[in-house]
Amino acid sequence: MSLTIKLHISNYPNFQTFSPKNPSKILPNYIYQTNPLLKTLKFTSSSSMATSPLSKTAIKSSLIDPDGGFLVDLIVPETERVLKTKEAEKLPAIRLTTIDLEWVHVLSEGWSSPLKGFMRENEYLQSLHFNSVRLNDGSFVNMSLPIVLAIDDLTKDQIGSSLHVSLVGPNGDFVAILRSVEIYKHNKEERIARTWGTTAHGLPYVEEVITPAGNWLIGGDLEVLKPIKYNDGLDHYRLSPNELRKEFDKREADAVFAFQLRNPVHNGHALLMNDTRRRLLEMGYKNPILLLHPLGGFTKADDVPLDVRMEQHSKVLEDGVLDPETTVVAIFPSPMHYAGPTEVQWHAKARINAGANFYIVGRDPAGMGHPTEKRDLYDPDHGKKVLSMAPGLEKLNILPFRVAAYDTVAKQMSFFDPSRAKDFLFISGTKMRAYARSGENPPDGFMCPGGWKVLVNYYASQQEEEAKQPATVSA
Amino acid sequence: MSLTIKLHISNYPNFQTFSPKNPSKILPNYIYQTNPLLKTLKFTSSSSMATSPLSKTAIKSSLIDPDGGFLVDLIVPETERVLKTKEAEKLPAIRLTTIDLEWVHVLSEGWSSPLKGFMRENEYLQSLHFNSVRLNDGSFVNMSLPIVLAIDDLTKDQIGSSLHVSLVGPNGDFVAILRSVEIYKHNKEERIARTWGTTAHGLPYVEEVITPAGNWLIGGDLEVLKPIKYNDGLDHYRLSPNELRKEFDKREADAVFAFQLRNPVHNGHALLMNDTRRRLLEMGYKNPILLLHPLGGFTKADDVPLDVRMEQHSKVLEDGVLDPETTVVAIFPSPMHYAGPTEVQWHAKARINAGANFYIVGRDPAGMGHPTEKRDLYDPDHGKKVLSMAPGLEKLNILPFRVAAYDTVAKQMSFFDPSRAKDFLFISGTKMRAYARSGENPPDGFMCPGGWKVLVNYYASQQEEEAKQPATVSA
Repeated sequence: MSLTIKLHISNYPNFQTFSPKNPSKILPNYIYQTNPLLKTLKFTSSSSMATSPLSKTAIKSSLIDPDGGFLVDLIVPETERVLKTKEAEKLPAIRLTTIDLEWVHVLSEGWSSPLKGFMRENEYLQSLHFNSVRLNDGSFVNMSLPIVLAIDDLTKDQIGSSLHVSLVGPNGDFVAILRSVEIYKHNKEERIARTWGTTAHGLPYVEEVITPAGNWLIGGDLEVLKPIKYNDGLDHYRLSPNELRKEFDKREADAVFAFQLRNPVHNGHALLMNDTRRRLLEMGYKNPILLLHPLGGFTKADDVPLDVRMEQHSKVLEDGVLDPETTVVAIFPSPMHYAGPTEVQWHAKARINAGANFYIVGRDPAGMGHPTEKRDLYDPDHGKKVLSMAPGLEKLNILPFRVAAYDTVAKQMSFFDPSRAKDFLFISGTKMRAYARSGENPPDGFMCPGGWKVLVNYYASQQEEEAKQPATVSA
Repeated sequence: MSLTIKLHISNYPNFQTFSPKNPSKILPNYIYQTNPLLKTLKFTSSSSMATSPLSKTAIKSSLIDPDGGFLVDLIVPETERVLKTKEAEKLPAIRLTTIDLEWVHVLSEGWSSPLKGFMRENEYLQSLHFNSVRLNDGSFVNMSLPIVLAIDDLTKDQIGSSLHVSLVGPNGDFVAILRSVEIYKHNKEERIARTWGTTAHGLPYVEEVITPAGNWLIGGDLEVLKPIKYNDGLDHYRLSPNELRKEFDKREADAVFAFQLRNPVHNGHALLMNDTRRRLLEMGYKNPILLLHPLGGFTKADDVPLDVRMEQHSKVLEDGVLDPETTVVAIFPSPMHYAGPTEVQWHAKARINAGANFYIVGRDPAGMGHPTEKRDLYDPDHGKKVLSMAPGLEKLNILPFRVAAYDTVAKQMSFFDPSRAKDFLFISGTKMRAYARSGENPPDGFMCPGGWKVLVNYYASQQEEEAKQPATVSA
């Protein structure tokens, strides 16, 4: 499970020990050492950055180029909206699930640039077999998760030989047109095996999305009729990659480091984020900005819901654990696969498109327990290893990190010190939730009080809700 | 099952219709059209070839460069053999299975160049996730199958912290030293799921090799004490990549097209190989050589054994179905995975190292029936699609081909003509084996008489063998 505080960097000792004075010389070397297989420098592709990270004049919205060279924007211009909506009404229609709509959102704003719509078979096969897609110039962009739309036999029949189809949201609104469609087989077993490395029953995304889905996939170019909104009071957090890039420019960031999470922020996370900032300053960057980037799409039932997490994140900033001046909090609209080393590549790739040139990766990213065996589904170190070798992520600086744990002597979260192992307490996500559920306090210094209160209140309200439900009689 | 004669090229119409006069202009265009995703030219990397395929002076052993730039040769020089064998005797030993030894053979001769031994974890993870491995210069070589050595807990304990280990063959001989070893977990479920796209029980290589194997993998640099020999009367067919390259040079080949097979050659195969040669001549090549390259390692129980196949192939050449002047018959020593689109990449990549710059791919390469469901395990078209998009195979010319079937009017194998579909008969591998087993003749023109007789004799001797066995009583 992933609200873990075992942050790991032991394989990458250089991150902890070097103290460079001349960043333009040191950074490439450091980066190379995190990734012994890559002799290519993992450094921003912007040449002005590479030669002079210190110069204010070098700052651009392109700290890092979007995959494919430009940000894909699939939202129809307002002037064409009425006309295209009328066209959509006349086309064979596909009814989207809530999670399909999350993918339309992801695609529409260019998180998955250079994808211009749901994958056709060539893209799907490359994603499944190579975790990357080849561009026309022969280079690769990373693309580790299939971004696909499933349809059933009936819908396939209704589409017939129509070149274009319309996509209708769960509430009946026309959402998009999918153009020049291609329909191909949805071999669920193969998709699941190659994406998760297991076909065991109980994978949340599989149970929720793939198993109930149709036996066909439909790809095509997407034209989204208007921006996707959720009207849940959190839309102001949903900044598009383009808006994020503008925000980083406005703040005059000379480095952006992204932190992906789907759990409440505890002081172990904060230690790591603040430590990363300190090290970037040591490297010579003048204004590194943190992108605190909680995932906003589908999560499994026992994860903390998005609204509670956003409130918790606010408190972490209010309580001064993270500095609002140097932190951008925004929602990453993707659904969660819990596909470990395969998914962490998607998490990193999408942040390239949002303008982050540094990506923090910890223990067992996007991992969970094996659904049927008593073990982690993935080797906890594979995520960072796979990420550091993944095709198409060369321009991103991967920052793997070491284990943090609760230091019972210092009474705070600290990087684990093996020479006094007995002083450290590892608090798992399960344990943290148990604390919050029981109303018991975790050790002092585990999480800021304001943030902790949000969790306690959430679990208390949950228990009240449960108490109100009629008791179910077990058979 | 794969002794199929459904050869397919419908997605690649250009191969059937063009008739170029100026090969240096036409070939790149043709090749590009077989692979719409690759704008890079799929042409030999030798610049003299690219500008003048017609010039005899341009012919080199490097029609195509080995992966990584040079052929790996892991066999210890004879002068060092005694010394290294003595060293091996003192090291902790790993006992190899027959199939492990086949992989030592494959590695030792450079079929898997630039691999220098069994994969360490970084190579294993890249193979599993990306079907390719990144070189120091940032480029990729294809590497779709994990080439790994498994050990059990006891062997791991015996190795302890030893830096080097020795490998001992099934008959007790010291075979090799594995240097600077790295031991890591063998997550069988994940390996199987990502390699085969299924975890269904009954995959031949899984049952035979992976399930009984230990829970650890050991990687390292291999030093093979002497060339691997089988003493089965077929060693003269086992030409190394280096020997094959020399043979192509000797014959002054200006193109080499490889045909991978693990089944008897019927006239549908022959039609295709002869047609390929004709087309290469049309393109302007003066001396295209066919590498008829049966797989010699592990195959599943109901495949025709290697010695029978080699005898059958000889008859096909004797009977004049293929021209001995322009054909090299050799054994490819790899074991068979039956892993479809994943494995066909290995089959192609290994032939790059052997000097082939054209690779023929048909319907459902390396495929088989799903072990537990009534369907093909893989989409029959995925093999050629995945192959044509695979990272690291850009320099290889992929030749996908169309369906051939028995033409009941012409009484011969012909390319399928949909306008008179009813005239064609598809003879599956299962059906062919049933003919041979019953002693019944297949339709005239299906296979040359000499080749057919080899099969009939084999199945007759099988039945005699079976008749000699004591009857088993079913429970």
